Amino acid sequence: MDSCLFCKIVKGEIPSYKIYEDDKTLSFLDVFPISEGHSLIIPKKHAQFVEELDNETASAVFNTTIKISKKLRNKLNVPATTIGIHNGKESGQEIPHMHIHVIPREESDGGGPINIVMANGKFNKPTDEELKALFEKLSK
Amino acid sequence: MDSCLFCKIVKGEIPSYKIYEDDKTLSFLDVFPISEGHSLIIPKKHAQFVEELDNETASAVFNTTIKISKKLRNKLNVPATTIGIHNGKESGQEIPHMHIHVIPREESDGGGPINIVMANGKFNKPTDEELKALFEKLSK
Repeated sequence: MDSCLFCKIVKGEIPSYKIYEDDKTLSFLDVFPISEGHSLIIPKKHAQFVEELDNETASAVFNTTIKISKKLRNKLNVPATTIGIHNGKESGQEIPHMHIHVIPREESDGGGPINIVMANGKFNKPTDEELKALFEKLSK
Repeated sequence: MDSCLFCKIVKGEIPSYKIYEDDKTLSFLDVFPISEGHSLIIPKKHAQFVEELDNETASAVFNTTIKISKKLRNKLNVPATTIGIHNGKESGQEIPHMHIHVIPREESDGGGPINIVMANGKFNKPTDEELKALFEKLSK
């Protein structure tokens, strides 16, 4: 897409710190990192949602994500990573080109787990009846 | 692994609300949901980290994740999902069996993006020199 920031990065029209590239995927440093080494993985072909990726592209993007997580853990000597996708603007996606965040994590960083505090918080303590009703809806 | 909670769910020794199952993967409702429909996807074979998954299992787990995200968006009529992995205990992984969270999201939920507030926050505004040095380290 002509106006897409990440498509411009793929085409080299906007510079980036590329740490991995193959036929279908690209990984580069996030310029607004949550921690040192915070990287993004994108498919080269434009798509906003994970559901839009064809099987081959999806596998390629996730394989690259695993490679990048391994690289960050090894080269930066951190024990863990947080891996996350904002799949749609209502989940915080700012660039409408599907991307996966890999964020290096350390015991002392104090960040804790992925923390999404819902303003409505209406389903945080479901009753067994609520879970059963939901199960019926989703398992059909 | 005999003592693993998720391995027990795979074997049916602990009940769960299973919403999808195939040869290699299983998906079930999280009993401590962040939002209605919050689901987990796991490989049936025990592994703690994404880096331990063989290629075939990794592809299967991510394909199932895409299916579940699609199912939640369609059946619960929500526009977006947050997809996340705590890859290691230092990132908040409580059950040491690799699992992917898919969390339905709505505009009005107020949850915002994946928010990990680092106590040390030392690399949040890197200089260009810091990014270059990191790039050198990671692109070797």
